[in-house]
Amino acid sequence: MEAKAFPMNGGDGAYSYTKNSYYQRAASYAVKEMLEEAITEKFDITSLSSSSNTIRIADLGCSVGPNTFITMQNLIESMERKCHSQDCTTMPEFHLFFNDHASNDFNTLFNSLPPDRHYFAAGVPGSFHGRLFPKSSLHFVHSSCALHWLSRVPEDLLDKSSPAWNKGRIHYTNSSEQVANAYANQFAKDMEVFLDARADEIAVGGMMVVIMPALPDGVRLTQDVICVFFDILEQSVVDMVKLGSISEAELDSFNLPLYVPSLKEMTQLGQSNGCFSIESVELTDPLSKMVGPLNVRAVVMHFRAGLEGILSKHFGSEIIDELFERTLDKSAEFSSRFESCCSKDTQLFLVLKRK
Amino acid sequence: MEAKAFPMNGGDGAYSYTKNSYYQRAASYAVKEMLEEAITEKFDITSLSSSSNTIRIADLGCSVGPNTFITMQNLIESMERKCHSQDCTTMPEFHLFFNDHASNDFNTLFNSLPPDRHYFAAGVPGSFHGRLFPKSSLHFVHSSCALHWLSRVPEDLLDKSSPAWNKGRIHYTNSSEQVANAYANQFAKDMEVFLDARADEIAVGGMMVVIMPALPDGVRLTQDVICVFFDILEQSVVDMVKLGSISEAELDSFNLPLYVPSLKEMTQLGQSNGCFSIESVELTDPLSKMVGPLNVRAVVMHFRAGLEGILSKHFGSEIIDELFERTLDKSAEFSSRFESCCSKDTQLFLVLKRK
Repeated sequence: MEAKAFPMNGGDGAYSYTKNSYYQRAASYAVKEMLEEAITEKFDITSLSSSSNTIRIADLGCSVGPNTFITMQNLIESMERKCHSQDCTTMPEFHLFFNDHASNDFNTLFNSLPPDRHYFAAGVPGSFHGRLFPKSSLHFVHSSCALHWLSRVPEDLLDKSSPAWNKGRIHYTNSSEQVANAYANQFAKDMEVFLDARADEIAVGGMMVVIMPALPDGVRLTQDVICVFFDILEQSVVDMVKLGSISEAELDSFNLPLYVPSLKEMTQLGQSNGCFSIESVELTDPLSKMVGPLNVRAVVMHFRAGLEGILSKHFGSEIIDELFERTLDKSAEFSSRFESCCSKDTQLFLVLKRK
Repeated sequence: MEAKAFPMNGGDGAYSYTKNSYYQRAASYAVKEMLEEAITEKFDITSLSSSSNTIRIADLGCSVGPNTFITMQNLIESMERKCHSQDCTTMPEFHLFFNDHASNDFNTLFNSLPPDRHYFAAGVPGSFHGRLFPKSSLHFVHSSCALHWLSRVPEDLLDKSSPAWNKGRIHYTNSSEQVANAYANQFAKDMEVFLDARADEIAVGGMMVVIMPALPDGVRLTQDVICVFFDILEQSVVDMVKLGSISEAELDSFNLPLYVPSLKEMTQLGQSNGCFSIESVELTDPLSKMVGPLNVRAVVMHFRAGLEGILSKHFGSEIIDELFERTLDKSAEFSSRFESCCSKDTQLFLVLKRK
């Protein structure tokens, strides 16, 4: 079964991903130094580029930019510095592969490629829950804000006879343990497929950096800032069901295919594949570098850019404006819950090396 | 100066390239056997794939499909047969790069990739009049119906003080020798840049096949079927200038950036680079495999899909329907001139090997 595609909003309009990837940008800034450190300390550019004088890099789940361009630029500058520090005789050439689902807006991506880039660029359409590249062809894989998307909604959530039927909810945040387990099992299957594919594609000695939302061990999702938005969005959907603009059946048949693993879960999944060593794993607060109070409007618009596709496909595009207006109306609740959350270290930075 | 992009019509509507690439499809059928023969006789797949067990193939100027998919499929089947015939122990993996200008409709291309393909696919945005890939990274380059597009209109054609000023015309078919020379010089410059870039990118022993319109030696363009369409399109533009829907200045400032070299010209350009051996060069009639009388409507629609972008950019999109209706009204003249042309061998098949 082909993995489902839930593309970010394309183009460059008011609700586009390009103009509303504020959170992801904050996330990129927060990890810039960590990425640089990982390359400086663990990426052996000289031996990896020795056979073809080329370093091949993939960004999996790149969306439409500009974050992917900023991160790739930083990445290449770090590699160039590493190369100089290793006194390599010739600078390798860099071949960059921007990957996302075929339904991602690659036209926008391609037309906004930085004109002064120091690399050869290619787009790779397809799900990263499967093979995308020839064997041992990649030297560095980067994936940011993408792996928490499940390849599909777990089937049990829609099965009325299953204890994991997720009636009246759009996510597992406040649901039963069975619902949470169905999400966790799907995520584990997806990660197994993902890691198997990357183990095939990454050359021995090559590196993979995964950045995604995750929970500190022992913290439940309801205690974490990540769940605040899902809760409030769910409330807005439920309000609209009460008012009749969304039917109960439509609510019952919808589940957001997003999962937030714990640090321990991710570490175990990374180890169980057997082809990778875990070089480093860390949780940070992605918003720690942001100045001033939380801009709730920007956060909601960010989620709109990412979720409008999947929401309008299920509920119809005519309800989208109202849904997000209702969500914005809950800004005060949003801010207060956000401030009172015990856990703000929500961003995983995981470095794996191909053994 | 960045090469100009004149993309084919995107999407899959009535005037799209996807639905109107009849001529190019005929051309693909005509060369299928020639391509297979070139691979069987001259492509050493075993030694080219020995280091990485991967064969990297680029289709330069691929447009939006489906022709590129059909040709690439044939190409890979030929390579697989060649591999079997050489008793290679493991079949290499195939990495395919579909290249065209960044303004090409890659979204359509990516969404119509054959689901059962035996290769990893990537899109490469950018002009082939320049570097697109790392050094020595390609094993096979294919380019069909693309290299006759000049990177830009020669400047002299627009200079009133130049003997090559192309007043009252849209092409060099019926123009002075100076105009024809300006086109030829631009083409020679473009080919030099193109071949230099490919010499960098193609690994030693790798192959390049170029398919494009060309003239037999000693045949003038006015004697060839290729010019019939340009002549008739020019007549339609001139008619519209007389009627006032296009201004004289607009006509004088427009020139189609298309050039048809002779067999001898192409051979000399191929040799002058110095990095390639010419393995085979041939001119054929691309329509020889078509049954029945020429379908003028289909030919005109084919040209519309290819030229609408550049024509509407210059003259405005509001004149396009009338321009092509007027061109279609001249079908009878089109057919009779077509039938009486002395030369119908208009398609060059050139095989180069990287020394």
